[in-house]
Amino acid sequence: MSGLLLTTIEMIKPLDKGAMAEARSRQDELTKPRGSLGVLEELSVRIAGIRRSPLPSLENKAIVVMAADHGVVAEGVSAYPQEVTRQMVTNFLNGNAAINVLARHTGVRLVVVDMGVIGGFEPHPSLLCKMIDFGTKNMAQGPAMSRQQALDTLEAGIAVVEAQLSQGLDIMGTGDMGIGNTTAASAIGVAVTGLPAAELTGAGTGIRREQLAHKVELVNRALEVNQPSPDDAIDVLAKVGGFEIGGLAGAILAAAANHIPVVIDGFISGAAALIAVKLAPLARDYLIAAHLSAEPGHLAMLDYMGLTPLLNLKMRLGEGTGAALGISLAEASVKLLKEMSTFGEAGVSDKDGEGG
Amino acid sequence: MSGLLLTTIEMIKPLDKGAMAEARSRQDELTKPRGSLGVLEELSVRIAGIRRSPLPSLENKAIVVMAADHGVVAEGVSAYPQEVTRQMVTNFLNGNAAINVLARHTGVRLVVVDMGVIGGFEPHPSLLCKMIDFGTKNMAQGPAMSRQQALDTLEAGIAVVEAQLSQGLDIMGTGDMGIGNTTAASAIGVAVTGLPAAELTGAGTGIRREQLAHKVELVNRALEVNQPSPDDAIDVLAKVGGFEIGGLAGAILAAAANHIPVVIDGFISGAAALIAVKLAPLARDYLIAAHLSAEPGHLAMLDYMGLTPLLNLKMRLGEGTGAALGISLAEASVKLLKEMSTFGEAGVSDKDGEGG
Repeated sequence: MSGLLLTTIEMIKPLDKGAMAEARSRQDELTKPRGSLGVLEELSVRIAGIRRSPLPSLENKAIVVMAADHGVVAEGVSAYPQEVTRQMVTNFLNGNAAINVLARHTGVRLVVVDMGVIGGFEPHPSLLCKMIDFGTKNMAQGPAMSRQQALDTLEAGIAVVEAQLSQGLDIMGTGDMGIGNTTAASAIGVAVTGLPAAELTGAGTGIRREQLAHKVELVNRALEVNQPSPDDAIDVLAKVGGFEIGGLAGAILAAAANHIPVVIDGFISGAAALIAVKLAPLARDYLIAAHLSAEPGHLAMLDYMGLTPLLNLKMRLGEGTGAALGISLAEASVKLLKEMSTFGEAGVSDKDGEGG
Repeated sequence: MSGLLLTTIEMIKPLDKGAMAEARSRQDELTKPRGSLGVLEELSVRIAGIRRSPLPSLENKAIVVMAADHGVVAEGVSAYPQEVTRQMVTNFLNGNAAINVLARHTGVRLVVVDMGVIGGFEPHPSLLCKMIDFGTKNMAQGPAMSRQQALDTLEAGIAVVEAQLSQGLDIMGTGDMGIGNTTAASAIGVAVTGLPAAELTGAGTGIRREQLAHKVELVNRALEVNQPSPDDAIDVLAKVGGFEIGGLAGAILAAAANHIPVVIDGFISGAAALIAVKLAPLARDYLIAAHLSAEPGHLAMLDYMGLTPLLNLKMRLGEGTGAALGISLAEASVKLLKEMSTFGEAGVSDKDGEGG
C-alpha cells in the first residue's frame, strides 16, 4: 500500500467513549421519557463519539457522488445504455436529477466526481476530475482494472475528502452513478461475504427475469475468471470493482480518519463500504446506513457489517438519494440532543424513582 | 350530529383520480428507473390526488398539537405526574421540547391547542384556547366526558383547522400531549378494533411490567363499566376518549374536507384517526402514517385502517415528533415530482422497450 492510503487507515481511531457517555447522559436528562426518541437517541450518541464532542453539530453537510463507466455493460447487464452514465452526470450538473432535489431539500452540498466516465465533460464548478481511465475493462473476461488503478481510486477518494475539509465538512454522504455498477457491486458482495451470487444480485435499474439469470451467471463468471482473494480488498476492488466504488471506499476511509460520520447510500455505496471496512475494520463505526435498498443483496451487505438502516422506503436509485434523507435524520438527532431543554432547565417534573 | 360536524364530513370526497393519473404518468417520465424512488413515488401520487393537482406543492406546513388532562391518571397509569401535561405545554411554548426542534428542522409551524389542561396558561401567541373542561373524568368509573363534550371536541378541532386555512395550509401533522392518554388511546383501539386489551396496551411513558398489567386491567374495566358501542365513534370518544383525541379527530376531518393531507403521528394520533375514519371512512385516504410507534398497539391501529408507516425509528414520544419527520418526507416526495427533469427535457436515453 502507498503512503497516503496507509496513513489514512492508521488515522482511523475507535470512537470517543467519553463523548458518547456525556451525550447519553444528556439524552437521559432531556424533557422526554428516556429512550422515547428511539433510534435518533442512539444515532446522536454515536455521532458524538465520531465527532469526539458531546454536543456535535452538523452544519456542513456534503454528498460525494462518484461516477464511472463499466466494461461489463458489453455483456448486456443493464436496462439502460452506457451513455446514460454521462447523460445523468450532466443532469446532476444541471441540478435536475433526484439527488439535486433531495440535496436542496436537506441543505446538503453536492460534490460530483468523474472517476472514469466515457465521453467526458466541459469544466464545471461542481465537477471534480479524478479520471482513472475511460471506464473499467470487462470483468467477465479479466480484471476490471489493475492493482495500481485500484490504489489510485482509493487515493483519489481520499484526496476528494481532504479537499472538502477546508470548506467545512461535518457529515458526508456517499452517492454513485455508473451504468453496470450493480453487477460490480454484486461481485464485490459475493467475493467479500462468500454468499451465493443469486442472493446478492438483483434487477438493478430494472432488467427482466431472464436478464437477471444472465446477470447472476456473469457475476459467477467474473469471480471464476478473476479469482479475487476475499481477504485482500484491493484485489477484490481491482478484479471485480469499479472506479467510482474504489473512490467511494477511499472517501469513506478519509472521512473516518477525520472524525466525520459517513451516511452510506444503497447497494453501490454498500459495496464501497465493504471494501473500506475490509481495509480498516475500525471504519465501520463511522458508518450510518441511510436506508435499505430494494436491491435484494443490500441487506446481506449491511448484515455483514452489522449496520441497521434508518429508512426502508423501497428506493433503489442510488445517486446518494437515500443518503440525503439519512443525513437529514442524523442532523435532526443532534439538533434534538443540543436544543432540547433538560427537565431541570424546563421545570418539568421527572419520572418518580427513575434511575436512568 | 350537529351542523358543522355533518357539513365537514359531507365535504370529504374521494381522491382526484385524474390528478393521480397525471402525477403517475409524470413519475414514469422522470430521469430515474421507473419505481426506483419507491414509497416516495406512491406518496407523491397520493398527495396529488388529495390536493387535486398533478403538481402539488407543500409550502405551508403545520403541526397541530392538542393537549388535555385525563381523569384516569387517578388510577396510577402513568410514570409521570399529571402536572407534566401543563409543564410540557409550557415547554412547547418556550420552544424547547422535541417537537419544537423537529418543527424548526423541517420548517413546520406549530399550533398548540389547550383542549383541557389542568392549571391553565397565560395568553401566548402560539396557544389556542379550546378548553372543554378541566380534564376528563376517570373512565374507570364512568364516561370520560358527556356526548355533548365529545361533539364539542370534534367541532373545536374543525374550527382550529378552518382558522389555519387563511394562513395557508398545504399539509397538516397531528401531535398530542396528555399524561394518561395512552390509556385512553388503548381503550379506543380495543373498542374500535375488537382486539384484546393486552395487544393494544403498552408501556406509554415507561411504566414497569407490574404497572402494565394494572393498565391492561384498567382498560378492560373502563370498557366494562362504559360499554361503548363500537359502531358509534362519538360514543367511544365520549366514554373512553380524551379531549385532545377528539380535537385531533375533528382536525383530521376538517383537513380531509379541505383537501389537505394529514400526517398522523403515533399511538394517540392513531386513536384520533380511528375515530375520524369511523365517522367518515373516506377520510382514510387523506391519512399518511408518519411512523410506527414503539408502543405495541400502534401497528394494530394502522393495520385496521390499512395504512403503512413511512418510518420505523422506535420512537414513542408523541407531540407530533414522528409527524414532523413524515411531513419532511412528504415534502421531499412532491419536490421530486415537480423539480426533477424528464428523460426528454434532460436528453437522457430511456430504457429500451420500456412500457411504463
